[in-house]
Amino acid sequence: MGEFSFIEWIRKRQKRRRDVVLGIGDDCAVINVSSDRLCLITTDMLVDGTHFDLKKCTVQDVGRKAIACSISDIAAMGCQPTVAVISICFPDHTTEAFARKLYKGIWDIADTYHIEIVGGDIISGRSPFCINVTMLGRDDGLKPIRRSGARVGDAILVTGMLGGAILGKHLSFEPRLKEGVALNKNFSIHAMIDISDGLTADLNHILEESGVGAVLYEDQIPVSPAAVELSVETGHTPLYHALSDGEDYELLMTVSPAQAKKIVSSGLLGDVKVSCIGEIVRGRSVRMKFSAGAIRRIKPHGYEHLQ
Amino acid sequence: MGEFSFIEWIRKRQKRRRDVVLGIGDDCAVINVSSDRLCLITTDMLVDGTHFDLKKCTVQDVGRKAIACSISDIAAMGCQPTVAVISICFPDHTTEAFARKLYKGIWDIADTYHIEIVGGDIISGRSPFCINVTMLGRDDGLKPIRRSGARVGDAILVTGMLGGAILGKHLSFEPRLKEGVALNKNFSIHAMIDISDGLTADLNHILEESGVGAVLYEDQIPVSPAAVELSVETGHTPLYHALSDGEDYELLMTVSPAQAKKIVSSGLLGDVKVSCIGEIVRGRSVRMKFSAGAIRRIKPHGYEHLQ
Repeated sequence: MGEFSFIEWIRKRQKRRRDVVLGIGDDCAVINVSSDRLCLITTDMLVDGTHFDLKKCTVQDVGRKAIACSISDIAAMGCQPTVAVISICFPDHTTEAFARKLYKGIWDIADTYHIEIVGGDIISGRSPFCINVTMLGRDDGLKPIRRSGARVGDAILVTGMLGGAILGKHLSFEPRLKEGVALNKNFSIHAMIDISDGLTADLNHILEESGVGAVLYEDQIPVSPAAVELSVETGHTPLYHALSDGEDYELLMTVSPAQAKKIVSSGLLGDVKVSCIGEIVRGRSVRMKFSAGAIRRIKPHGYEHLQ
Repeated sequence: MGEFSFIEWIRKRQKRRRDVVLGIGDDCAVINVSSDRLCLITTDMLVDGTHFDLKKCTVQDVGRKAIACSISDIAAMGCQPTVAVISICFPDHTTEAFARKLYKGIWDIADTYHIEIVGGDIISGRSPFCINVTMLGRDDGLKPIRRSGARVGDAILVTGMLGGAILGKHLSFEPRLKEGVALNKNFSIHAMIDISDGLTADLNHILEESGVGAVLYEDQIPVSPAAVELSVETGHTPLYHALSDGEDYELLMTVSPAQAKKIVSSGLLGDVKVSCIGEIVRGRSVRMKFSAGAIRRIKPHGYEHLQ
């Protein structure tokens, strides 16, 4: 069973409420909480040994990451996070010092983004250390940007550099919140997602929700130095890592070609590089236009649970 | 480190937002989402081997329980649940049949209470089966009932029968949602909580938040047949089990003596028994008025994690 096919099964079977604007299958769900206000909600679970390794990082890093991932999900809708609740399962015999360090990491980033931790659940068990963050956001009069709005002819843009996040960025990344909100406020973004599973896998989420295909330009993919570094160890190409690694937490979006030009030239995203890496086309596949001229279909792969 | 002292530490350190009406330390947090609408949020994590045992129950039971616990938290504020997000960690090699049975349990109860599952996170890892539910609720013009409103002179009421939930009720309980909302709509409830940690432990949460003490009447505690049954195995008294076991998911509340009479005589709660089990007094302790006449201090105990 694949994770995504199981989610599709849940999605089809789920009974719907009238106040739910957007249910399962996007970065956040969106609920109508009053005539003119939307509430966004997103949840993420991280488990030691799977999403991080306490032998290779500090518990403070984990606290920071757990919050940052959720902020990134709300940023990918172009909206503002507000509060979070956190469930934690500590392994038996966890010390108070460990628990406090976790919260130091949580507060470091929650305070920066003015997010209040309003509740949670703390348990202990014969289990690896596990943390679940549910975060709420608000629309502030903006329309939450879905995955489903990509149109044939759109340009595909991505922020930052991709690949090799495992070498450090997966813990230290700054969620693209300012950028996500600025893009939503100032431009018409057709579809947006944050890159957690990997560029091609997350692009594929947009394509499936929108019923379109894509062509990527090999020479425009912003390959990070970390992808190059990692490629030496793995024997894969740097491009492979940029396309597949995931956990970049960059924003991937589709916009009209005219808006794409404006975004790139606006300087609104400050130091954050924006690359035009491809275009939306008819069909359902992801193809790559290689520098040598050939266009070949590539298989979207990236991290999928329940494989 | 105790769970509750750690939560107290978090609560004191936490920076506050102006739109948060009620933060850490109650059954739910309450957020102001528009000028006249409140959003409630609660989160609960359940881990195999700690909160349930898949050798003794079905995964369908677990799905049902995870949702029912969260409904109970919102019922304890006298408000209406709306949507939930669910994170699940499946152990490696989980079958699709197992995952589908889990969702059967989830939907059995979610559909009954018109709760839509709007999102979630599904992961797999080298970890026991673990599920986290975050549920939202709405005020519908009612005031969420806090733990902190108990007043000296109040009567202490509890729904249903207590103790021995481990023999079955901890899985099959019906959350007191109809009752919680009816109580909030029709009466002035000063403080309310649902019994998850145990009668004395949860009463103590009300006392600590309200800055008051309590006297319980030994002969008025509604001891369940399950508590009697369990006492044969354990050697403890049935009363001990009714006071300490927890996971009854009944509603414990304090109201004026006049309101208490009205609630008991109103018949509004239908088949659900309501017992007047004590009164709120000055001080901070829980004392028991024994049938033989003596009044003695009892130690609030019940389930606490991180012991």
